[in-house]
Amino acid sequence: MNRQGKAYLVGAGPGAVDHLTVRAYQLLTEAEALVYDALINPDILALVPETCEVHAVGKRGGQPSVSQQEINQLLVTLCQQGKQVVRLKSGDPFIFGRTTSEMQALQATGCPYEVVPGLSSALAAPLLANIPLTDPVLGSNFAVLTAHDLTLHSWEALAQMATLVILMGGKVLPEMSDRLISHGKRPETPVAVIRWASQPQQQLWEGTLLNIAQRTKGEKLSPCIIVIGEVVGLRPYL
Amino acid sequence: MNRQGKAYLVGAGPGAVDHLTVRAYQLLTEAEALVYDALINPDILALVPETCEVHAVGKRGGQPSVSQQEINQLLVTLCQQGKQVVRLKSGDPFIFGRTTSEMQALQATGCPYEVVPGLSSALAAPLLANIPLTDPVLGSNFAVLTAHDLTLHSWEALAQMATLVILMGGKVLPEMSDRLISHGKRPETPVAVIRWASQPQQQLWEGTLLNIAQRTKGEKLSPCIIVIGEVVGLRPYL
Repeated sequence: MNRQGKAYLVGAGPGAVDHLTVRAYQLLTEAEALVYDALINPDILALVPETCEVHAVGKRGGQPSVSQQEINQLLVTLCQQGKQVVRLKSGDPFIFGRTTSEMQALQATGCPYEVVPGLSSALAAPLLANIPLTDPVLGSNFAVLTAHDLTLHSWEALAQMATLVILMGGKVLPEMSDRLISHGKRPETPVAVIRWASQPQQQLWEGTLLNIAQRTKGEKLSPCIIVIGEVVGLRPYL
Repeated sequence: MNRQGKAYLVGAGPGAVDHLTVRAYQLLTEAEALVYDALINPDILALVPETCEVHAVGKRGGQPSVSQQEINQLLVTLCQQGKQVVRLKSGDPFIFGRTTSEMQALQATGCPYEVVPGLSSALAAPLLANIPLTDPVLGSNFAVLTAHDLTLHSWEALAQMATLVILMGGKVLPEMSDRLISHGKRPETPVAVIRWASQPQQQLWEGTLLNIAQRTKGEKLSPCIIVIGEVVGLRPYL
């Protein structure tokens, strides 16, 4: 009789092993199967035992990507084989991670699972770049969004939030800036674009809503986190 | 000659040792001085060596609290004594943590410091209660705020965000609900109130903007995280 398998939907955090949680670290070192996305630090992948079977399912430029349905099926199959499966995602599994689809597939087939939170890049990337997302004077709230479809959001509302954190927004930075200015956000509002947050190759551009598009013109901005708000101006003082 | 001290401004995450980062865990086990807030799990405090000197500076009911200026001075003094100082805060140090004041005090006196991110309760509490903060259909963005001063925020804007996460909002839950409804948020919008997130004594109340005040009437709601949005409705299916 096979031992029962289990799937762990684990957040890998923003990059370095240091920023994994204790629980994520432990699960990785005991994994029997690893299913991981693109953009995960090789040092983290190296934590699994030599006997662990490894499946890369992330989207990679130029190669055919694995569909969400195939990922769901893979998790179920590995689990039904009695394996301890780590499904590793960048950042936090519940922040734009499409994790619910995987949970529902596991649930529908009776496979036990557990979600293990990770540091979301939305919060960790600004912190590690010395930008506090909140400040008693300059930032009393913040909003987090992805920019893959700008029409999903009320830009009128976003323009009234103290701080914005935008994931996957490199390509539409000029259009977002225009929308925020046209809805009343000060053109001089500071903006930071952080690429490869917390990794050795981290890049950072600073500007304002008015000039950030010009300052990053021609640069490859993916993967990046964009922070818009007066708190960005605190960076030089910290 | 003394070895140089250093202060580490460390996020303790939402509660359990499992949710510390690897870096935070390591720093705690090597700390020579610990300065910590209220509400931190005793299991985490127990990680420091026996020889570590320990200072509780959190606000506790009925006792005089330590001022921010006294905390700043304590960190500087310990650092100048050549100690490896861990300044431990609940959640993440940059999310409503008033960390910049401590950084500036350390900087002004030439004490080296490092900020170590932690899992913010704003994100981890909903996740650990099976509420995904985002969803491809039901939640394309979210906003995070504290409720200690409701006038700091545009409630018109907040009412247009898909999901709200509110820290320190137990006492003003009825007033917040009224403000959101009067700015056009559906009265049937699902609400969850999570107390002692991720701890064994976690409590959870569910309702809608219209009835959550009634459903939590007379309950002690502090410390709590409030989640408002359609994503709360996903909880029973995950």
